[in-house]
Parts: sequence; structure tokens; C-alpha cells
Amino acid sequence: MTDVQCVLDEITAEIQASPPSGDVADYIPGLEKVDPNQFGISVAMTSGETYSAGDSATDFSIQSISKVFTLGLVMGLDGDNLWDRVSREPSGTPFNSLVQLEQERGIPRNPFINAGALVVTDRLLSITGDSQASLEGLLRTESSNHAIKVSESIAAGEKATGHRNASLAYFLSSYCNLTNPVPKVLDAYFRQCAIAMSCEDLARAGSFLSRGGTGRGGRMVLTPDQVRKLNAVMLTCGTYDAAGDFAYRVGLPCKSGVGGGILAVVPGKCAVGVWGPKLDKSGNSSAGVAALAKLTSRIGWSIF
Amino acid sequence: MTDVQCVLDEITAEIQASPPSGDVADYIPGLEKVDPNQFGISVAMTSGETYSAGDSATDFSIQSISKVFTLGLVMGLDGDNLWDRVSREPSGTPFNSLVQLEQERGIPRNPFINAGALVVTDRLLSITGDSQASLEGLLRTESSNHAIKVSESIAAGEKATGHRNASLAYFLSSYCNLTNPVPKVLDAYFRQCAIAMSCEDLARAGSFLSRGGTGRGGRMVLTPDQVRKLNAVMLTCGTYDAAGDFAYRVGLPCKSGVGGGILAVVPGKCAVGVWGPKLDKSGNSSAGVAALAKLTSRIGWSIF
Amino acid sequence: MTDVQCVLDEITAEIQASPPSGDVADYIPGLEKVDPNQFGISVAMTSGETYSAGDSATDFSIQSISKVFTLGLVMGLDGDNLWDRVSREPSGTPFNSLVQLEQERGIPRNPFINAGALVVTDRLLSITGDSQASLEGLLRTESSNHAIKVSESIAAGEKATGHRNASLAYFLSSYCNLTNPVPKVLDAYFRQCAIAMSCEDLARAGSFLSRGGTGRGGRMVLTPDQVRKLNAVMLTCGTYDAAGDFAYRVGLPCKSGVGGGILAVVPGKCAVGVWGPKLDKSGNSSAGVAALAKLTSRIGWSIF
Amino acid sequence: MTDVQCVLDEITAEIQASPPSGDVADYIPGLEKVDPNQFGISVAMTSGETYSAGDSATDFSIQSISKVFTLGLVMGLDGDNLWDRVSREPSGTPFNSLVQLEQERGIPRNPFINAGALVVTDRLLSITGDSQASLEGLLRTESSNHAIKVSESIAAGEKATGHRNASLAYFLSSYCNLTNPVPKVLDAYFRQCAIAMSCEDLARAGSFLSRGGTGRGGRMVLTPDQVRKLNAVMLTCGTYDAAGDFAYRVGLPCKSGVGGGILAVVPGKCAVGVWGPKLDKSGNSSAGVAALAKLTSRIGWSIF
Repeated sequence: MTDVQCVLDEITAEIQASPPSGDVADYIPGLEKVDPNQFGISVAMTSGETYSAGDSATDFSIQSISKVFTLGLVMGLDGDNLWDRVSREPSGTPFNSLVQLEQERGIPRNPFINAGALVVTDRLLSITGDSQASLEGLLRTESSNHAIKVSESIAAGEKATGHRNASLAYFLSSYCNLTNPVPKVLDAYFRQCAIAMSCEDLARAGSFLSRGGTGRGGRMVLTPDQVRKLNAVMLTCGTYDAAGDFAYRVGLPCKSGVGGGILAVVPGKCAVGVWGPKLDKSGNSSAGVAALAKLTSRIGWSIF
Repeated sequence: MTDVQCVLDEITAEIQASPPSGDVADYIPGLEKVDPNQFGISVAMTSGETYSAGDSATDFSIQSISKVFTLGLVMGLDGDNLWDRVSREPSGTPFNSLVQLEQERGIPRNPFINAGALVVTDRLLSITGDSQASLEGLLRTESSNHAIKVSESIAAGEKATGHRNASLAYFLSSYCNLTNPVPKVLDAYFRQCAIAMSCEDLARAGSFLSRGGTGRGGRMVLTPDQVRKLNAVMLTCGTYDAAGDFAYRVGLPCKSGVGGGILAVVPGKCAVGVWGPKLDKSGNSSAGVAALAKLTSRIGWSIF
Repeated sequence: MTDVQCVLDEITAEIQASPPSGDVADYIPGLEKVDPNQFGISVAMTSGETYSAGDSATDFSIQSISKVFTLGLVMGLDGDNLWDRVSREPSGTPFNSLVQLEQERGIPRNPFINAGALVVTDRLLSITGDSQASLEGLLRTESSNHAIKVSESIAAGEKATGHRNASLAYFLSSYCNLTNPVPKVLDAYFRQCAIAMSCEDLARAGSFLSRGGTGRGGRMVLTPDQVRKLNAVMLTCGTYDAAGDFAYRVGLPCKSGVGGGILAVVPGKCAVGVWGPKLDKSGNSSAGVAALAKLTSRIGWSIF
Repeated sequence: MTDVQCVLDEITAEIQASPPSGDVADYIPGLEKVDPNQFGISVAMTSGETYSAGDSATDFSIQSISKVFTLGLVMGLDGDNLWDRVSREPSGTPFNSLVQLEQERGIPRNPFINAGALVVTDRLLSITGDSQASLEGLLRTESSNHAIKVSESIAAGEKATGHRNASLAYFLSSYCNLTNPVPKVLDAYFRQCAIAMSCEDLARAGSFLSRGGTGRGGRMVLTPDQVRKLNAVMLTCGTYDAAGDFAYRVGLPCKSGVGGGILAVVPGKCAVGVWGPKLDKSGNSSAGVAALAKLTSRIGWSIF
């Protein structure tokens, strides 16, 4: 297993030597303040060890990666009921999201596009009464880091500039696909996205996805069948409009966020948290994609 | 390994006891003449054994399953050059295909939608001079069945009713994304789709995809990296507009055809050929999808 | 001119004898309470006489007809500046509105679709400080009916069910195409739509459009050139997605509302207010369209 | 009436003094050979006089203007039957044409987009057996110029580069909305577009549209009601995707062609033929639009 550490060090050195191009997301106030050339990576093995390199202990804004965990929570608490309100097909192009939402009468294409994630949050709110506490509870327990919390400045920035998400939420509401009041759903959604975590936290928090649903201390977060399904949704829908290219190049279920983080899962082996703030044109971390492609090709971790 | 045979027998008995609903494709003259309740399945292990049940020796029209093999041939002969002319993203909804083809200036979304497959055929024609001979050569060698051939009546039916494909081909041509004359490309395309094979042939012909690219007699059909990539494209784009649902329910790279066949790949383990003529609303074999879902859940063959 | 009265009586008798089919709009609470078989028509000649028949003195909710008057006010106060923020092309299909708004980066296709009318209201708010007072002032002065006012129950119903419009407004705001706060624009918009008027009021209020812009008492509401342009926008964009069919069948600039009213203009001759609550599938008054088609074919008032 | 001649001379001098910008169409071989700064205009009064200025006697390729005449022929011969196969709504954006054709199951949005015109040609072929002879007969009779004919070099160029139109025709055929063989329809369509005429020919040939359907020598080409309807379709659909802007700026029913010609109708007064090869970004003649806007504002010929 020292192999893994060697490969991580090697990859980190390569990324640092020639940082990939791309721009840091700036449409949410606060995100643009990050040093663009940071890079971290952590691998949490199913056996319990964690290997890390680079800025793997630095917190970043997880943004859309939170959607994996809220979806996992709803799948665990509510079984297959969610799928009456959200589909699970790739969204095609960015342009399609709103078109398809209109064509498909308010049923979002999948739970990882913003419209779908708003429905997931709405459901989690209805089930738990406090979606944020549930989410933070899961992340803290699974990562063993009880200091994980929301960045209040990022949350405020999300809210101040969230007109597009407000538009989506009212649109869903016009199709009766939100049951809580729109401002309440939006507020919960913005706070989820504003959670700050490090690569180490992220790899550990996501490692139940590589262990057939078994979480910290042996508790069952999800059943093996549910985890397989969640990983399948990540692979087909987890990286915005680049799912096909991601599967082709990386070959792993992944979920990315515009904060530059990516969570990747190698079923039965490990979970990977990787972070680099610069984004490619699809909105995925340039360094993160490059590092994951190197990792799977060198260790042979592709699921294909 | 008798396990596999038992599971196949069990699944076949269940499918025969309660045949899934759906309709046989009737838009290509000839396809509709098939007995709708036939069902066959074959599993070709990497070790060489083949397990079969039901009508696994009956020939059917492979239709779009041929696209896996033409894509494999082009990837093997031409490396990554193809990707300048075809993307590899899921297509979203059926409605999108033409829209996106127009929006994306004649670059098809992926090599498995008809527009993309026409470009693959065009490329294979240019490289080999005789795309049909190359394709039949690959299928015959890998399946060890030298009797595999085109159904002339189906090929004639494809041609007589192929106005939609003709429209696509002229559209591609208007964007200079075909290099051979349109009628020549269409003719080659129609003949590929009209090839007849059995489940046993199909499982064997596709087994190089589960053996890291190694074909019959140890020859290299594709490199391990190319096979991983081809499998990734199958998973994200291989089942029309149901790729997300397929990944969720079946969890394997698959390519389906409107003749009711499906080729599935379990990397490192086996290739599966399954066939039932009735199609679900996405155009995939109802019995085939049901059988594959049973197979992966009982043997645990999901890649996730 | 008794001709006109005869034709109106004749048409009203025919409409009452065989009321057209269709449904009363019910998505705004209050609208559905209207007696569906009412019908009224008024013609205000440029010379000053008004001819009426049926329920021409009964108030109804003008809804989108208000958009002609807010657009007229903005054109009069602000010249051509508006056209940087709104296009003036027909919108194609309902499905297109949001797509096109996204494709065209937040520039609505025309000032009569809801997105466009929200921008017009936003501009009127910015110029006048009180868009509602300006609008009511214009309607009261031109109709000589100072009792015209908002139906508070309809306004409350608009607000309670206006999630789709809220979605549009936040969407425009995400493209920086609203300058006032979204709730303020929405409130002004809902109140405009909730104004109640009769056919007689409507025909008189709109008669400056048939008099080259000259309003009550000879004052210039718009220049002749501005009126020609406003009439052109009405003809190409005034009847939702049925502009082509309306031009074909009626041949006059018209603006309809889901309250069942239509304002039509015969340049140089008269303005027509017509009302019948049942709507056809495009959202235009069935009786109104039928009456206008009869009117233009019997009196020969088509502009073509 | 000398007024008209003065205005035409004045406009021509202005256009020649500062030629509008734009590019000559070059996608059809032959069109690009035209001197880009030519300009001609002719006005054929209902009373019979024709006023002309500039290069009004020079032949140009009428291209899509032919669609007015084929539609007129079909309306005259076949009444309203055509409207089962073609709608009459503006098409929104260029991007929509194919989308909408797919969404609306092969029913083109209007008879002036290429798909719709192919259906009109198909119908004219079925009714007359020789659509080209009918069209040329109409144009020659109404213009009194029996030398009007097809440019064979342009027709050959249309055919050689007509892959996009071939695609549309096969697409229509796949929806059974063509009854003649695709190559026959395409051939007829290409020849119609390749007809060469001068502004004088065009104004005279179209003057029945300004005379309520009465053609040369008093014969009835169309009924007054049919002409009103044809003019309405021209206004809402005649200038590609710029119908709203055209109505706003010019205020007349018009049909344009990529050869740089425009036919405009002033009901009851005259028909106008205008030509300048440079096109604006919507594909309409820059000089033609400018000249028509000047003409209507100076003589007050807007229908609004």
C-alpha cells in the first residue's frame, strides 16, 4: 500500500510542476479569493488507512459535492420514493436543463443538476425537519471531524447571488414539485453548498461508498444495493455535462463542485478526495481531473 | 461455475413464465415477423467456457449492437482521431439528437446515436475500403462462427424505410462530416445493422471487451486502455436515452439494438449476449433488461 | 355608420346562439368565477362614436392586454431605449420562451411574453416611480372612465399563484435585466394584470392606436411613427403563439388576455374591444377570435 | 404619381452614396459572382404604371421569393387543404426550424421556411404534374415578360450544395409529409429558386397581391380573401427570423430571398420589387430593407 502514497506524491509533484490551466469560479462571492494553484489529494482505503499529499488538510467549499451526501441521506431514509419527483438520466448539455425541466413538466433530469438537488433538499427537509443538521451529522461522523461546518461568508454570497437558483426553485414550485416554502428550501440549499471540508475529510466522509454502504464503526449508512445505485448515478450524472468524457478518461464514479473539489469512488477499494480551484470549461477541477486520470491509469483503478 | 448455468436457467424460466410487456419493433420491414416471446441468454467467461439458456442459438438482427464493433475497429485502426468528429457525451433525450447536431455544428454527441454511427462507418469505409468485410471478419473470428452474415431481406427493409437515416447523413454531409458519398455510407450502415447473430455468437464475439482487448487465440484486438474507454462509452451512451436508468438498474456497460439484443460486459469476468424481441419505451429489450438486472443482482456482477 | 351597429348586433346574436367551445382560465384564483357565456363587443371610431353590443359594459380582468398600454407608456417616455433589453420577434412556441430566454442571455423575445412584459414594467417603474399610477392614469383618461381600478381579489390571486412569473423574474435578474428588486417588479406586474375594464372602456382607451397616437382632447400619446410600430408589434406578437393564425384569420393588430378580452386596432378607422371568457388552446378568447374574424370579413377591415 | 418616381430616385441616390454593409450569399455556387453594390427598385401601381430606379432591369436570382408564387398557386388550386400539412406560424429562431419540425412530427411551421416550401412544391407537383411550368407560366403572364427562365448554372449549384435541403426532404419523407419521390421534389425546388428576374419583372409579377388577386388582363389569380391571407403569411413569416423587426421597421408584407431581392406589397396601392445583393445577418438584403423603410416612412405606405 506504500504504492498508493508514492503515486500520490508523484502526481502531486507533477501537478505542482505544471499547474493545469483554467479559472477559479467567481460567480459566488468568496470563492474567487482562493489561491488558485493549491492542490491536495487524499485516498481513504476500505481498510481504514488514509494516504494524502499536497494541500490535503486545507478546507475548501464543497459546493455540489454536498449533493452526493444529501442524495445518500434521502435514499437511506426514503427508499425509492424520490424517483417519482426526479429522473436519473444525464442532462445532455447545460442548455437542456431548463428546456427539459419545462418539457418534462417540472421533473428534473437527475438529482445532481441544481433543479434536482433542490428537490432532494426539499425532501430531506420534509423528512428530517432539519436537513442541515442531518447532512452535517453524516459528514462529521463519517469523517471523524466534528469541526466541519458552513462557511458563513460563502453562504451569504450564495444567497446574495442566487437568483438563478431562486428562478429554478420557483419554477419547480409552479409544477408543485417543492413542498416546503421556496425561501426555506433555498436557504437550506445554499448552506449545504457552503460547507467547508478538506480532501482528507472528504475522502473519509465518502468512504462508505467504497465499502458497500458500511460507515464508521460498522453502522449501515446505505445497503450495498443502494450504494451501487448511488455510484451509478454519480458516474452518469456527477460531473455536470462532462459525464461521458469523465467516464472515458477517469473511469470512476465522481461528483465535482465548483469550489474545485471532486469525490471519486473505487468500489471495494477506496474513496478519493481531490482539490484544485481552477476549473475547466465544464466546471470541473482541471487539476482534479488530471490527477484522477493519472491515478486510475497508474494504479489501474478504473471500474471498466 | 455451475452457479452461472443455474442462474441462467432460473432467469430464463422466470422470463418465460411471465414474459415482460413491450412491442416488437416494426418500423424496419422484417423485424416485426419475429416470434415476440422468444428469449435467449449466453455468458462467455474470460476463461473460455460459455453458458447458455433459452433460445440462445437462434439468430436475430443485431441492429445497433453492430456499433460497438465498428467503433472498436475504428479505435483500433485509427486511435483517437475519431473524437475530432464525434463527441462522447450521453444524448439526453431523443428530441435532442437533431437539435444538438445542429447546435454543435454537425458533431454528433456520441458514436452510438445514429448520426455518430454514420460518422464511424464513414471513417471505417475510408480506412479499410470495405467496412463490411472488416466488421464481418471481426465478428466471425471472435465468435468462431464463420456463417455469420447479413440478412438480405432486413438490409433491403432498412434501405426502403431509411429516410430518417438518409436525412441525418445529408445533414452531416452539409457540415462536411462525411467524406464518402452519402449513398455509399448509408448502404454500408444498413448492412451492418442487418447482420444476424445468436446470443452465443454475440457473447463470444464481445468477450474481448471483458478480457482487456485480447481476442480469440490471444491476438490483441484493442489495448487494455482502449477497452476501458470503449466500455465507458457503452455505459454512458449504449442504451439510447436510458443510460442513467440502465446504470442504476443493471450496472454494466451495455449496447442494445432494436432487434431486441443486448451485449453486456463484466470487465475481467465475462461478456453476456441476451435477446428478447419486445422493446420497452426507450427501445431496449424488456426481457433483456429484466434478465440483466436479475443476473447482476444475483451474481453481484455490477461494476459499482 | 349604422352599418357597424348592425354588424355588431348580428355577430353578437350569432355568438350567443352558438357559443364557441373552450375553457375559462382557472389558474389565477378569481378568474374561474366568471359566467363563461358572457359576450360583449365595442367599436370606438376615430370620429368619436362608440358602437356596442352584448355585455359590453361588464367589467372583466384585462390581464395581458395591459401590456399594450405599459409598452405604449415606455415607448412614449423612453423612445427606443427599451429595445436594448427586449427583442421584438414572435416567440415561436410556448416551449421556446424559456429556452430562448436562456439562449439569448436574458433578453426576452418580445415585450408581450411575460418575461418581456416584466422588463417593460421594470423600466416603467424606474422612469415613473409609480408604474401603476401611470397606467391607470392613461386608461382612465383615454376611456373617460375614472372608476377603472384594480380588482384586489384578482391581484391577490395572481400573487398567490405567481410562481412561474417569480421564476421568470429571478431568471431575468440573474442576467441583470431587471433593475428594481424582484418582489417590487412582480407586485407591479400582478396589479397591472388585475385591472378590470369593460369592452367600452377598452375600445375607447385603445382608440389612440387607431388615430395615429392622438388621445382624448387632442393630446399626443404617441407619435404616428410610434403607433405604427406598436401596432406592428401587436400584429406579430400580440396573441401568444397564434400570431400567424390570427393575422391569417383576423388580419388586425390585436392583444389578448387570459381574462377573455381582446383589443384590436383598425388603423385610421377604429379600435375594438371584445370579450368572451372561454379560451381556445392558444389562450385567446374563442368568442373574441370568432367575432373579430366575422367583423373583418363583413366590413372588410383587414389591414391586408 | 411623379412623387413616387422622385422618392425612388432619391432613395436610390442615397443607397448608392452610402451602400449598406453586409455580405453576398456564397453558399450557392454562382450567387457570389454578383457585383455586390448593384441596387434596383421598381414599384408597380395597381393602376398599371411602373416606376423604377437604379439597376431595376438587371436579372437576379429570386431564390426564396419564388415561395410566394408557389404558395399562391397552391392556394388557388387547392384551397385550404395545404394547411393540414404546413402550419402558418413564425418560426422563432433559425435554430428552431429542425427542432420544431421534429417536435411537431414533420409539420413545418410555415410555408416559407425551406421545409414548408418543400411541402408546397410537393403539393404543386402532385396537382399540376409540372410545378415548374405552372410557376414560370404565372411569372411570365403577370410580368408580361416571356423571357423569364431558370439560370441553369445556379440550378446546378443549388443541386451540388443542397445537402441541407436533401436532409430536410428526407426528414419530411420519414414523416410521410412528401408524396412525390424526394429527388423529384428537390429537383423542382432547386429550379424554382434558380429563376432569374429583374425588379421590374418582380414588381409586376407580384402586383396581383396588391389588387385583391386580380391579375393581368383582369383574370382572377386568387380571391380577395385568399390574397389577404397570403399577405398575412408574408408579413408574419416572409423574412426569415426577422419578421417582427421587419414589421416594426417596414410595416409591409414582404418576401425576401438570399439573392438579395425582396417583394413587398402595399394592399390596394402597389407591389414593390427591390434588389441589393449584400445580406444582413438575418439573410435579408441590407439595401432592400433600408430602401423599403425609407419608402414607407416617406410615402406613408405602412399597413399599420
